[in-house]
Amino acid sequence: MASSTYAVTKIVGTSKTSIEDAIEGAIATASKSLRGLDWFEVISTRGYIDNDKVKYYQVTLELGFKYDG
Amino acid sequence: MASSTYAVTKIVGTSKTSIEDAIEGAIATASKSLRGLDWFEVISTRGYIDNDKVKYYQVTLELGFKYDG
Amino acid sequence: MASSTYAVTKIVGTSKTSIEDAIEGAIATASKSLRGLDWFEVISTRGYIDNDKVKYYQVTLELGFKYDG
Amino acid sequence: MASSTYAVTKIVGTSKTSIEDAIEGAIATASKSLRGLDWFEVISTRGYIDNDKVKYYQVTLELGFKYDG
Amino acid sequence: MASSTYAVTKIVGTSKTSIEDAIEGAIATASKSLRGLDWFEVISTRGYIDNDKVKYYQVTLELGFKYDG
Amino acid sequence: MASSTYAVTKIVGTSKTSIEDAIEGAIATASKSLRGLDWFEVISTRGYIDNDKVKYYQVTLELGFKYDG
Amino acid sequence: MASSTYAVTKIVGTSKTSIEDAIEGAIATASKSLRGLDWFEVISTRGYIDNDKVKYYQVTLELGFKYDG
Amino acid sequence: MASSTYAVTKIVGTSKTSIEDAIEGAIATASKSLRGLDWFEVISTRGYIDNDKVKYYQVTLELGFKYDG
Amino acid sequence: MASSTYAVTKIVGTSKTSIEDAIEGAIATASKSLRGLDWFEVISTRGYIDNDKVKYYQVTLELGFKYDG
Amino acid sequence: MASSTYAVTKIVGTSKTSIEDAIEGAIATASKSLRGLDWFEVISTRGYIDNDKVKYYQVTLELGFKYDG
Amino acid sequence: MASSTYAVTKIVGTSKTSIEDAIEGAIATASKSLRGLDWFEVISTRGYIDNDKVKYYQVTLELGFKYDG
Amino acid sequence: MASSTYAVTKIVGTSKTSIEDAIEGAIATASKSLRGLDWFEVISTRGYIDNDKVKYYQVTLELGFKYDG
Repeated sequence: MASSTYAVTKIVGTSKTSIEDAIEGAIATASKSLRGLDWFEVISTRGYIDNDKVKYYQVTLELGFKYDG
Repeated sequence: MASSTYAVTKIVGTSKTSIEDAIEGAIATASKSLRGLDWFEVISTRGYIDNDKVKYYQVTLELGFKYDG
Repeated sequence: MASSTYAVTKIVGTSKTSIEDAIEGAIATASKSLRGLDWFEVISTRGYIDNDKVKYYQVTLELGFKYDG
Repeated sequence: MASSTYAVTKIVGTSKTSIEDAIEGAIATASKSLRGLDWFEVISTRGYIDNDKVKYYQVTLELGFKYDG
Repeated sequence: MASSTYAVTKIVGTSKTSIEDAIEGAIATASKSLRGLDWFEVISTRGYIDNDKVKYYQVTLELGFKYDG
Repeated sequence: MASSTYAVTKIVGTSKTSIEDAIEGAIATASKSLRGLDWFEVISTRGYIDNDKVKYYQVTLELGFKYDG
Repeated sequence: MASSTYAVTKIVGTSKTSIEDAIEGAIATASKSLRGLDWFEVISTRGYIDNDKVKYYQVTLELGFKYDG
Repeated sequence: MASSTYAVTKIVGTSKTSIEDAIEGAIATASKSLRGLDWFEVISTRGYIDNDKVKYYQVTLELGFKYDG
Repeated sequence: MASSTYAVTKIVGTSKTSIEDAIEGAIATASKSLRGLDWFEVISTRGYIDNDKVKYYQVTLELGFKYDG
Repeated sequence: MASSTYAVTKIVGTSKTSIEDAIEGAIATASKSLRGLDWFEVISTRGYIDNDKVKYYQVTLELGFKYDG
Repeated sequence: MASSTYAVTKIVGTSKTSIEDAIEGAIATASKSLRGLDWFEVISTRGYIDNDKVKYYQVTLELGFKYDG
Repeated sequence: MASSTYAVTKIVGTSKTSIEDAIEGAIATASKSLRGLDWFEVISTRGYIDNDKVKYYQVTLELGFKYDG
C-alpha cells in the first residue's frame, strides 16, 4: 500500500464452488464501480445449505481502494 | 439472502422512543438513496441522556443491499 | 442461578414486532423440548428488510437450563 | 459531549417489561448519586426466565458523566 | 432464512484436502441427526501438521437449523 | 484430536472450592449423557459472593466430543 | 441476581499462591467499602515473574453489587 | 451528535510524522466528497518500516457524517 | 505494579492538540479525587470534527490505582 | 497435542492460487528453522488486488511446535 | 515493568493437576532459553479429557521478557 | 508487502515523551537482531503514572519481517 488515503468498503461475495471464487466474484463486481482496488480482508465466511449440501458460500470482505475524496 | 453480491453500509439511526424505532428510522433514511435493502445487524446501542432521562437512542446498524457494481 | 450444572444452547427467535417479542418466542419454542430454562443472553440482533421496512427481527440468544447429564 | 473530562461507570438495570425500561431504570437509579449523566452504551442484554417466560431483563450499561475529579 | 425459530449447533469438520471439504463433511455428518439444516458460519480454521505438511484441516462451524422445540 | 467430526457443547460447572473442581464437575455431569468427550476450553470464569466470600465458582466450558451424526 | 439495580466495579487482586486466592483477596478488600457484593467475573489473569517463578498472580475482576444510587 | 441519521465510512489516512497528522489527513481528504463530517474513531494504527524507521503511519478511522439518504 | 489490590476506573480525557495531551488531562483530573494512580490503558481514541478539522480528541482510558477498600 | 510444552509463532504465508496453498507455504518455510511443528490456526485471511483480480492471498497463521526451552 | 524494551512470546504449558501448575511449567521451560522473564498473561485455558476426567490442562500464556535486540 | 513469507513478533516499546517515540524505539531495538522489518501494528497503548503524570508510555506492537525459515 503506497502512501496515500484509502477508503474501505464492505462487500459480500457468493459462490457455489469455493471461498476463493466468492472472493474473486466480490472483487469483480466491486471493480465495476470502484477504481484502484488494492487489498481485501476476509471478515466472515458463511453459507447457505440446501439438501444437506453447501448451496453457496457467502464471504464478507473489506475492500481497500485509493481515495482522493 | 439470494445468491448475488451485496454491499454493507453502516448507519446510525436515532429515536426518542425505542430501539426498534431507531432501526426503522435508519432504514427509512437509507432507502432514499439505496435500493434493494435486504438485511440489518445491530452493531451498538447507545444514547444521550438529558435531565436523567433518555434523550434519544442511537442505534448503529450494518445494512446489506444488493450490489451490481 | 443456583449451584448446579447448566447447559447453554443457542437459539434464533424471530418476530415482526419487537426485539422483546423475538426473545419471548425463542424461549417459548425452546421450552417445548427443554426443561428448567433459567436465563438468556442476547448474542446478536439482526433482521430482514422488505420494501424498506423491517420484515422481522432475528434475535440470537444463548439459553441456560439446568442439566443433570 | 462537550470538551471536558468524563467518567464512565457500569450499571445493570432490570425491568419486567422491556429493554428500554431497564435502561431508563438504571439511569434513574444512577442519577440519585451521580450528576451530569450524559450518555450510555448498552454492553450486554441478558435476563432471567421463570415458567418459560422472561422474568426480567438485565441490561448492562456504561454511563458517562461529567467529572471534575 | 424464513420467519421461524432456529437452533444453532457447533460442529468441527475435518478434511485432508481443503477447507471447503471440511465444511461439506461437517454438514454431511450433522445431517444424519439434524433435519432442516439451513446455514453455516465458519468460527475457526485450524489444522494439524505432520512431517511439515497439513495432516488435516479442522474447521469449526456454527450450523443453523429449523427448530420447533 | 483424531481426524473425525466433533460436536461442541457449552456447559456451566459450579464448585465451592476451585476453578479446577468446577471444570471436573461439568465434565462428570456431561459424561452421563455424552460419550467420547475429548477436550474442553474455558469460556468464562464467574462466581457468586455471599457474606464477602466466594459462594461458588461458575466456569463456562465448551466441551468437544466425537460425533457421528 | 434479584430484580434490582447493580453497579459493576473493576478490581485487581493479587496472590502469591493461586488464582482463587487472588479472587478471594480482591473480594475481601472491596468488601471494606462496598456493601452487597453479589457476583464476580474474571476479566484477565496475569502475573509477575521473579527468578523464573511466579512472583504473584494478578487477577482482574468485575464485581457486581447492589446499588440504590 | 444531534438527533438525526448518520452514516459511517472507513478511511485509512497516512502520515510520515505522527498519528494525529494521519487522522487530520484522512479527514481532509474525506471532506472533499463528504459534507457534515461530525466524529471519528480510530480503528487501528499500523505503519510501514523502511531502513528500520517508520516510513509512514497508517491510521484506519471510522468517520461519521450527517446523512439524509 | 507492586503486590496489593488495585481498582480500575474508566475516564474520557479530551484535548484540542494530541492524544498524549488528552491522556495527561484525564490523569490530572482524576488525580484530584483519586490517590495512588499507577497505570493507564488506552481503550479507545475518538474525536469530534468541526469544519473538516479535529475539534478535539477524546481518549478513553482505564486508570489503575491502589485500593485499600 | 501430547503433554509437553509448546511455543506458538505467527507467520504470514502467501500464494497466488488459494488459501490452502498459502497455509502449506507458510508451514514449509517455517519448517526450515523450526522442528516439531504440530498445529496451526488461521488468524486472518487477506490479500492484494491487481487489475481487479486477486494478486495473492496472505494468510496469517499461528503455528504451534514442541518446545524444550 | 521498568522503562526498557520487552518482547512477548506465546507458550502453551501443560499439567495434569492445575492451571497454576501449567503456568509454572511453561515459565520453567521458557526460562531455559529466555533470560529476563518478567510477566505473563493467560490467553486461553483448555484441556484434554480421558475417561471423562481431565487428562491435562493446557494453558496458553504470553510471556514478556527484557529484550535488547 | 511483496509476495513472500513473513514472521510476526510482538514487542513492547517505551518512551517518556510520546506514543510515536515508543514505536520508533521498539523498531530500533528489534532491528538489532531482526532483518527485513517491514510493517507494524499497534496492539495496545498503556503507560505508568508517577506523581499524577505519565512516567512512560508502553506501546505493544506486532512487527512483521521477511522470513526465509
